[in-house]
Amino acid sequence: MIKQGAYPPEPWCLRETHLDLELLAQSESLFALSNGHLGLRGNLDEGEPHSLPGTYLNSVHERHPLPYAEAGYGYPDYGETVVDAPNGKLIRLLVDDEPFDVRYGELSEHRRVLDLRRGVLDRAVRWQSPSGVEIRVRSTRLVSLTQRAIAAIRYEVEPVSDRVAVVVQSELVANETLPPPASDPRAAAALSAPFEALDVQTTAAGLSFVHETRLSKLRVASGIDHEVDGPSDMSCAVDAAEDLGRFTVTCRLDPGRTLQLTKYLAYGWSGQRSLPAVRDQVAAALAAARQSGWDGLLAEQRELLDRFWEGADVRLEGDEEIQQAVRFALFQLLQASARAERRPIPAKGLTGTGYDGHCFWDTESFVLPVLTYCAPQAAADALRWRADTLPVATEHARALGFSGAAFPWRTITGRECSAYWPAGTAAFHVNADIADAVVRLSNAHPDPDFDRRVGLPLLVGTARLWRCLGHMDRDGEFRIDGVTGPDEYSAVADNNVYTNLMAQQNLLAAADAAAADLQTATELGVSDAEVESWREAASAMYVPRDRALGVHQQAENFTRHARLDFGVLPPDPYPLLLHMPYVDLYRKQVVKQADLVLAMHLRGDAFTAEEKRRNFDYYEELTVRDSSLSACTQAVLAAEVGHLDLALDYAAEAALMDLRDLESNTGNGLHMAALAGTWIALVAGFGGFRDHHGELSFAPRLPAGLGGLAFTLRWRGARLHVDIDPSRAAYTLREADGELDVRHHGEKLRLENGRTVLAPLPEIVPQPRPGQPPGRAPTLREDRTAEAAPATDGSADPNQ
Amino acid sequence: MIKQGAYPPEPWCLRETHLDLELLAQSESLFALSNGHLGLRGNLDEGEPHSLPGTYLNSVHERHPLPYAEAGYGYPDYGETVVDAPNGKLIRLLVDDEPFDVRYGELSEHRRVLDLRRGVLDRAVRWQSPSGVEIRVRSTRLVSLTQRAIAAIRYEVEPVSDRVAVVVQSELVANETLPPPASDPRAAAALSAPFEALDVQTTAAGLSFVHETRLSKLRVASGIDHEVDGPSDMSCAVDAAEDLGRFTVTCRLDPGRTLQLTKYLAYGWSGQRSLPAVRDQVAAALAAARQSGWDGLLAEQRELLDRFWEGADVRLEGDEEIQQAVRFALFQLLQASARAERRPIPAKGLTGTGYDGHCFWDTESFVLPVLTYCAPQAAADALRWRADTLPVATEHARALGFSGAAFPWRTITGRECSAYWPAGTAAFHVNADIADAVVRLSNAHPDPDFDRRVGLPLLVGTARLWRCLGHMDRDGEFRIDGVTGPDEYSAVADNNVYTNLMAQQNLLAAADAAAADLQTATELGVSDAEVESWREAASAMYVPRDRALGVHQQAENFTRHARLDFGVLPPDPYPLLLHMPYVDLYRKQVVKQADLVLAMHLRGDAFTAEEKRRNFDYYEELTVRDSSLSACTQAVLAAEVGHLDLALDYAAEAALMDLRDLESNTGNGLHMAALAGTWIALVAGFGGFRDHHGELSFAPRLPAGLGGLAFTLRWRGARLHVDIDPSRAAYTLREADGELDVRHHGEKLRLENGRTVLAPLPEIVPQPRPGQPPGRAPTLREDRTAEAAPATDGSADPNQ
Repeated sequence: MIKQGAYPPEPWCLRETHLDLELLAQSESLFALSNGHLGLRGNLDEGEPHSLPGTYLNSVHERHPLPYAEAGYGYPDYGETVVDAPNGKLIRLLVDDEPFDVRYGELSEHRRVLDLRRGVLDRAVRWQSPSGVEIRVRSTRLVSLTQRAIAAIRYEVEPVSDRVAVVVQSELVANETLPPPASDPRAAAALSAPFEALDVQTTAAGLSFVHETRLSKLRVASGIDHEVDGPSDMSCAVDAAEDLGRFTVTCRLDPGRTLQLTKYLAYGWSGQRSLPAVRDQVAAALAAARQSGWDGLLAEQRELLDRFWEGADVRLEGDEEIQQAVRFALFQLLQASARAERRPIPAKGLTGTGYDGHCFWDTESFVLPVLTYCAPQAAADALRWRADTLPVATEHARALGFSGAAFPWRTITGRECSAYWPAGTAAFHVNADIADAVVRLSNAHPDPDFDRRVGLPLLVGTARLWRCLGHMDRDGEFRIDGVTGPDEYSAVADNNVYTNLMAQQNLLAAADAAAADLQTATELGVSDAEVESWREAASAMYVPRDRALGVHQQAENFTRHARLDFGVLPPDPYPLLLHMPYVDLYRKQVVKQADLVLAMHLRGDAFTAEEKRRNFDYYEELTVRDSSLSACTQAVLAAEVGHLDLALDYAAEAALMDLRDLESNTGNGLHMAALAGTWIALVAGFGGFRDHHGELSFAPRLPAGLGGLAFTLRWRGARLHVDIDPSRAAYTLREADGELDVRHHGEKLRLENGRTVLAPLPEIVPQPRPGQPPGRAPTLREDRTAEAAPATDGSADPNQ
Repeated sequence: MIKQGAYPPEPWCLRETHLDLELLAQSESLFALSNGHLGLRGNLDEGEPHSLPGTYLNSVHERHPLPYAEAGYGYPDYGETVVDAPNGKLIRLLVDDEPFDVRYGELSEHRRVLDLRRGVLDRAVRWQSPSGVEIRVRSTRLVSLTQRAIAAIRYEVEPVSDRVAVVVQSELVANETLPPPASDPRAAAALSAPFEALDVQTTAAGLSFVHETRLSKLRVASGIDHEVDGPSDMSCAVDAAEDLGRFTVTCRLDPGRTLQLTKYLAYGWSGQRSLPAVRDQVAAALAAARQSGWDGLLAEQRELLDRFWEGADVRLEGDEEIQQAVRFALFQLLQASARAERRPIPAKGLTGTGYDGHCFWDTESFVLPVLTYCAPQAAADALRWRADTLPVATEHARALGFSGAAFPWRTITGRECSAYWPAGTAAFHVNADIADAVVRLSNAHPDPDFDRRVGLPLLVGTARLWRCLGHMDRDGEFRIDGVTGPDEYSAVADNNVYTNLMAQQNLLAAADAAAADLQTATELGVSDAEVESWREAASAMYVPRDRALGVHQQAENFTRHARLDFGVLPPDPYPLLLHMPYVDLYRKQVVKQADLVLAMHLRGDAFTAEEKRRNFDYYEELTVRDSSLSACTQAVLAAEVGHLDLALDYAAEAALMDLRDLESNTGNGLHMAALAGTWIALVAGFGGFRDHHGELSFAPRLPAGLGGLAFTLRWRGARLHVDIDPSRAAYTLREADGELDVRHHGEKLRLENGRTVLAPLPEIVPQPRPGQPPGRAPTLREDRTAEAAPATDGSADPNQ
């Protein structure tokens, strides 16, 4: 865990005031830069010390055989895992023949700042070598959001008092030695030296490589180029061999004089294009970047981010930490998606190797609901990627004996990589989650071309799967048996409510979309009878309830299962999966992460207010939140049913998941879904924002801890600004070419462009706070902020 | 599959009239000899050709890591697999420098006979070498049922017409090269060269080895010794190195003269005793065997088998094939168990490496019910082994978070070796199956010492597990959720009827046994309150029914699941697990093997006759019999509910499972449970034998295809002989020291020693024959016998 105050709560940046080597892994993830295509972990420029060096290209992966002690039909033969691309961010420094290494000598200053508006990572160092020579080093790193192949680093060295000999080695290194893999099964499978070198080229101030992965046969081109400004005696040289290329600058520097290096990095890859093609692509990208120049890249970056924040910013009053966290979250979501362009958005973005770099349902169910309203083009691209993988999903369904498309539980390329089917392939809800994301985006930003090429094919493929997975019971109920819902502490159950309700929506959406575009539907082989069978299944969908308890059952029989006896577990038993076998977890009424509660968010239209209240309280007692995907959803429903303080506690937990490393695994990458959950907890929780059936509705309500909340949603080319204070909400529509009807606490408001409509907040009757499993009550928000108070002052001693 | 008539239906032997190399693997299993401690596959004396050379010592195994692509808490780290012990049955022969090999030259005669009364395998060969020399070879092999460490071979060579130079090499070979493992996951894990050589000793006419397995650290001693009778110019020599020892006899033989070699083999092993101790144990065993001599060993074998058959033989009129099969089955069951002595009875006995040599629930649920009434001491020994492993099972339960003992799904040493928990550890019914076997044996052969040391500890350990696995529902029903029943096409379901009813019996038996021996119960920590909680759980046990359909549910919700659409499957889709993923199988109403139907056999007291009839017909339509454990149980219930012809079809399928290789895997070992099922199908099926609550009851009824059925049961020191013809049953009690009450079709009969009581057979009203899944109707018995007719004549051409 990261202690409170490690990063003081500043509104527009994440500032590290001193280097804590114990938190190196976490800082590498938190300070990662990415544009969705290329990602650089926040490693120190000089490469060492490191926890995990990381340079990632979206979808560049290696295949590896999946072992099974007892194999079964249809199990995937191969897994996929992200590989570490050639590292071009290395800049080694020698000062009077002494390598600059923060572990030696004396580090009197070490500050790093991730600037959320400029989109750069700044670093400032003052260091005295073991032999007593003192220097300043400043660097600024960016991964360009405007030029997707490009990253750039400005690096400056300055002696403080003595003239020194300086050697700067700017490197490009392939097949870096990585630390041995963690025993945590969620960490990446080890793949050492994944690349074969195919080509090395040098230029006056740079070099390029082409490598190929051994099994997946992806050709990766990488290149670096440099501009240097230094004293007249400066000399530069390039040398390169397989896997190691260097640009070396040597000079003597007087105190106050600066050696300034500008390094441009470019990457490109392809599974199809030839070696010369990918090599030339990188050379061209470098040429374009040099043409823009350092200042040009900075300016483009700022301009793009200004536009982003204009339509995405969330403002809070009364909680500086959550304010910082939600902006950090939005920035990281943009970084993970902006230029992914028909490639997946992995669960950890491009910030680490956690979960093998795989993409899960989290993308559609947590990340895309945010991007839909903040960066719609990125949401559309992510769904275009899913549509591109429809042939693989269709083949997967066929191999399993199903109709339609069966999207993978975890993947990089679209192939199923889950080696444990009860918590993988059986979690068919991923298909309805994709459909849900399609419907949301299509409502928010109608685009007939998208609907025709992406939306309808995805809806039809997934609807066909549901129609085949379920069956009409003799009593006229449509049952979906033997599937796994979001809660990973249950599996292979009948009629999971989340799954059934999401499938219901999927079936109806496919039917509606087919009716709206008969020509495309016909091309997809959809008949009237098929559409009718979807509607029939949807309207007969079985939703199990426990009438005696007056609650929904997470899945059929669930509320009849034994509750977990926490008394027999070890003192700190979380996550339970490290202390209990699945064979016992699955039998019990214990919930890893919001499942029925998530259904009440995403399919809130299918529950009455009273049902939500009763269900929330019931499942709250069972939910241990052993997943980063839970707190945000609990925040949303807690707010809806009137537990506003509890909602704030959960919102804070979602917001601080990575900034405080609450699950002790931020080091292997940021949790994109929890980051998205920060926005969701605030906007859907305290803003009460819902988008059922393409209608925007709000039910703002603020907890005592928040004085105000303002957010902006992009909607059909317009921006809708919502500004909430404890007494009223103000709705302002901008850049709209018509009126917009929204609901405020159920009441219709008609919004016109440029005019602010005020609506009062109803009084929320406080409800008795429900209980959680032992030891799993969320930290009270007031306790977290109290514990924070002394530490915000931590920057006073930069040497600590 | 083995064609009808490969083995002519002789009453007391299995005769192979010519060598079919295509059926070599099957014949190696069928002609395997064993005493439960030592097993020799029916390999040719000269070693080659072979399918799988095999010499097995019960429980001699190697450990190997189990790989998991996605590991989970509590998964076993290591598997265990049977290893091929040093092969001492090799006798190579050179005739005028030409190796005797049936693949070369001309084989004019090759007969093998497994004699079920003498307990030996005879072989007679007439062979002409490629160079034209003709010889006869005769061998007889036995694995002693009376001297457990010992096997012996009498080997004779005789020239037919020319004087020949003969070299006989009698070998002992360790770390034999084995064929590469099959792709079938059920076949053994490959372990090449498992032994490290520790010691080699030679004697005048023999030698011995001591080896050790590399990881499991078991010391295995093996030795051979010889007696030779041959011409005066004969010379003998012994040479031995690591892993290869030879006794070589060289001579010239005139036509009509015979070289006779008698080879004694001895084996011993220990995980604890020292090298000299195991070495000397083998030397002692060889000395004792030589003392008995070949004729002595033969005589002891015959005597033991005569006693066995006296209390075990089953006679049939009207079906020679089933007659042969049931005797073959009883012989093989005796071979698998007679001298196992506190070691497991593996699913394949000691006849092959199938299932890694593991023991499953089959032992208690299929093999022990037969042994209890035919070889009670072997049944008791098998349960003593389970009791010996109670500490491991208790530790396993504790590691999983349960109380009591959790016996492994598959094991050699008692450690869980299942790497797929939904079909392994979750199949907790193995615990109730062990309890069931305890109760049966304890009723049939009361023994206070057994009850105290074995019975009560096993019953208490398993009852505690059930009390902890289940819970009392709010409606006062005791539920056991999330477990797997016998049907391997379902898993992790709630309230499997088989499991719940067997657990109910287990809980009550434990309560009764604790009450009957308060002192031992107290030593085991059993309190009155605990006993009361067992009775409470048993009496509240939930047994799900589908009231609308009027049938029991295999597990809760089962009858609501979709039926399998066989229309979409490939033409020959069996076994389904090779064509469908578990994720689909588990969701469907499709049954791999008798599950609810097995409950109606073993817990027949819990169902009404009408329930049995309705349930049988319902589940018959769903059961694909992709397991060798199914047909016998279906035979039993088919007979009970009045489908007598169908019962005969199923009985024949069980009987011919290995003799016809119906599942195409007899080559890697015989199916002990299906062999037991032959007896069960006849005795419990047509004899209607049940032993609920320690009361013997019979409901004899013969199908049209059988003219008579007679069998004998051992019961409390007595033998009960039951002789059934189409009109009546005759019950005769022998060697009893009191009266015995039995039931005949529900009516009480009092039997006195030596007096035969006749009882008429009621008329059975034929019922409409129920259907089976497409392609899975059992072969009609009349069709099988018809197809057999021409082939019984196959011996006419011995050269074929």
